[in-house]
Amino acid sequence: MQKNRLEALTDGIYAIIITIMVLELKVPHNPTIESYVDMWPVFASYAVSFLFVGLNWASHHHLFHTVTKVSNSVLWTNMVNLFILSLVPFATATMGENSFKAITVTIYGSLLTISIVVYLILVNLLCRTHGPNSAFSQQFKGHKKTYLSIVLNCVAIVISMIGFPKIAFSLLVIISLAWFIPNHVFEEE
Amino acid sequence: MQKNRLEALTDGIYAIIITIMVLELKVPHNPTIESYVDMWPVFASYAVSFLFVGLNWASHHHLFHTVTKVSNSVLWTNMVNLFILSLVPFATATMGENSFKAITVTIYGSLLTISIVVYLILVNLLCRTHGPNSAFSQQFKGHKKTYLSIVLNCVAIVISMIGFPKIAFSLLVIISLAWFIPNHVFEEE
Amino acid sequence: MQKNRLEALTDGIYAIIITIMVLELKVPHNPTIESYVDMWPVFASYAVSFLFVGLNWASHHHLFHTVTKVSNSVLWTNMVNLFILSLVPFATATMGENSFKAITVTIYGSLLTISIVVYLILVNLLCRTHGPNSAFSQQFKGHKKTYLSIVLNCVAIVISMIGFPKIAFSLLVIISLAWFIPNHVFEEE
Amino acid sequence: MQKNRLEALTDGIYAIIITIMVLELKVPHNPTIESYVDMWPVFASYAVSFLFVGLNWASHHHLFHTVTKVSNSVLWTNMVNLFILSLVPFATATMGENSFKAITVTIYGSLLTISIVVYLILVNLLCRTHGPNSAFSQQFKGHKKTYLSIVLNCVAIVISMIGFPKIAFSLLVIISLAWFIPNHVFEEE
Repeated sequence: MQKNRLEALTDGIYAIIITIMVLELKVPHNPTIESYVDMWPVFASYAVSFLFVGLNWASHHHLFHTVTKVSNSVLWTNMVNLFILSLVPFATATMGENSFKAITVTIYGSLLTISIVVYLILVNLLCRTHGPNSAFSQQFKGHKKTYLSIVLNCVAIVISMIGFPKIAFSLLVIISLAWFIPNHVFEEE
Repeated sequence: MQKNRLEALTDGIYAIIITIMVLELKVPHNPTIESYVDMWPVFASYAVSFLFVGLNWASHHHLFHTVTKVSNSVLWTNMVNLFILSLVPFATATMGENSFKAITVTIYGSLLTISIVVYLILVNLLCRTHGPNSAFSQQFKGHKKTYLSIVLNCVAIVISMIGFPKIAFSLLVIISLAWFIPNHVFEEE
Repeated sequence: MQKNRLEALTDGIYAIIITIMVLELKVPHNPTIESYVDMWPVFASYAVSFLFVGLNWASHHHLFHTVTKVSNSVLWTNMVNLFILSLVPFATATMGENSFKAITVTIYGSLLTISIVVYLILVNLLCRTHGPNSAFSQQFKGHKKTYLSIVLNCVAIVISMIGFPKIAFSLLVIISLAWFIPNHVFEEE
Repeated sequence: MQKNRLEALTDGIYAIIITIMVLELKVPHNPTIESYVDMWPVFASYAVSFLFVGLNWASHHHLFHTVTKVSNSVLWTNMVNLFILSLVPFATATMGENSFKAITVTIYGSLLTISIVVYLILVNLLCRTHGPNSAFSQQFKGHKKTYLSIVLNCVAIVISMIGFPKIAFSLLVIISLAWFIPNHVFEEE
C-alpha cells in the first residue's frame, strides 16, 4: 500500500471541501453595503470552516510526513475522517444561512468534535502500525492539546444546546485559534 | 504512456465525485430536529455512495499499484469507469430526494452494477497487457467476490423493480460492506 | 519553469471540468421512466462533452510526455486552452436544456473548434521551443487529422446555423469518435 | 515540512477556484443571440478573474520553484492567500450579475488588491526564511511592479467608489495585462 496515492486523494478532497464551501455564498441581487453586512453570519461561518479544515489538513500533512506504512485500517479511518469533513460545507452553510440558530451550531460543533476524535484514532492506529519505539511514535507522544480541544468542544456543544449558540460558536473559534500554540506548551504543564 | 498522469487525473476525478455529492445536500431553512430526521434518505444515500466510491477507489489504487504498462484500451476503459462513476452523484441525489422511489433505486443499483462490470473488464485488460505469467496477473487470479457482487447487485435491481426498493437498497449496502472481507475468504471456498 | 506543476494544475482543471458537468444534470422530482427518457438531450450532451474533454486530455498527456522545456508562451497558450475548455460545461448544459436549439449547437461546435485550433497552436509552439530536429518535433510531424477535424467542425457549425442542429451535433460526435483512428492512417494517405 | 504537499494542496485549490467560477454562468432558457450578448458582463468578469487567478498561480509557481524551506508562517500566509482567492468566484459572480454596479467593483478591486499585498508578504517571509544571501532572495529583489500594481489597484477602487465602476474595471484589466511585461523593464527604470 503506497502512502503517495492516499495523500494525493486526501489532498484532492481537502482542496475541494475547502473550496466548494464558497459556492454556498449566494450572489446578492442589487447589493448595498447593508446587504453585505447582513451576510456576516455566512462569511463568519465560511472563514471559521476554512480555518478549521486548513488546520485539519496541516495536522494531516504533519502526521503523514513520517509515516512509512499504511495499513487497510489506516486507509479506512482516513476515509471516515474525510467523510466527516465532507459534511462541514453543509453544516457551515446551514449555520450561516440560519444566523447561528442553536440546533445548527450544535450540529456544527458536533461535526468538528467527531472530526478531532477520528483524527486521534488515526494517530493511535498509525502509532500501533509503526510500533511504540518507531521514529513515528516518538513524535506523537502526549495528546493533551487534542484532549483539551475535545473537552472544550463538548462544552461548546452544551452551551449551544442550552440556548447560547453565538457564545458556543465564539468558543469554537477560540479552540481553533489555540491550535496555533505549539504542542510543547501544553505538554510541559 | 505514463501511469502517473493517468493516476493523477483518476484520483482528481474520484476526489471530485466523492465531494460534489455533498452539494446535493440542500441547506434547510429554519431547521428543527425533525427536519434533519426527515432528511435521512438523503444522508443515507450520500453515506452509501461515499462508501461505494471509496471502495472503488481503493480497488483502483490496489489494481494500479503493480501496473507497469498502460495501453490505449486501458486508458479508455478507465475513462468509461470514470464516466459511470460520474453519474453516481446524480443517481444518489435523485434517490435521496425521492425517498428511495423504486425507479430511482433501480437506476442507482444498475449504475453500481455497470461500474463493477467495467472494473472487471479493466482487470482483464490489464492482465492481458501484462501477460498471464506477469507478477501483475498472478495477483489478480480468481474473481469470485466480484462475480458474486454482480449477481447479488442484479438481485437487488430485480427486488427494486418488483416494488421493494428499500430492501433492494439495504442489499446494496450489505454487498458494499462485504468488500471489507478479504478476497482469500471467497477464493478458499 | 517546471513541467510537473503545469501538468498538475492542468490535470486538476481537466478533472474538475469533466466532473462539474454532472452538476448540470438536474435532479428530477418524482421521476418516471418517461421523465428520464425526456432528459436524453441532457445526457447525450454530457456524454459527448465527457468524450471530447477526455480526448483532449489524452492528447495533452501524449503531447507533454516528451516535453522537456516549458516557455512562458507555452504556459499561457495552455491557459487559453483551459479557459476555452472551462466554457464547455456551460455550453453543454445550455445545449442539453434547450434540446439542441440551433444557436446552442452553433456555440458548442464553435467552442470545440476553437479548442482544437488552440491545441494546434500549442503543438507548434512546443515544436519551435524544442527545435525542428528534437525528438519532440519528430513525433509531431503532420497534422492531417487535426486539420480535417477543424474543417469538418466548421461544416458542422454551418449545418447548425442553417437550421439542422441535430445533424450538426451528430457530425460533431462522429468527428470525436474519429480521433480513435490512429494518426498514421491519415498520414499515409 | 515538505514543500511538495503544500504545492499539491495549493494547486488543487487554484484549479478548483478557476473552474468553479464557471458554475456561476447561469444556463439561459430558450437563448437568442441577444440573450448571449446581454450576458457580456458575466463573461467579461469571468474572463478577467480567470486571467487574474492564472497570473497569481504562475507567480506562485515561479516563487516556490526555488523555495527550499517552508516554515509554519509561510504555510499560513499561503492559506490566507488561498482564502482571499477563494472569495474571487463570489465577487466575480456578484459583479457580473449586477452589471458592474459600483459597490460590486469596489469589493472586487479590494479583493484583488489584498491578494497582491498577501503575495508580497509571502515573498518577504520566504526571503527571510532563506536568508538575504540565498539564491532564493537574490531572485526576488525589487518589487517595483508589485508596488505599482497595488497603487494602481487602489486608484481603481477609488474610481469605482466615486461612481465610475466600468472605468475602474477597465483599469483592473490593464493592470493585470501589465503583468505580462517582464519584471526587469520596471527594475531598470
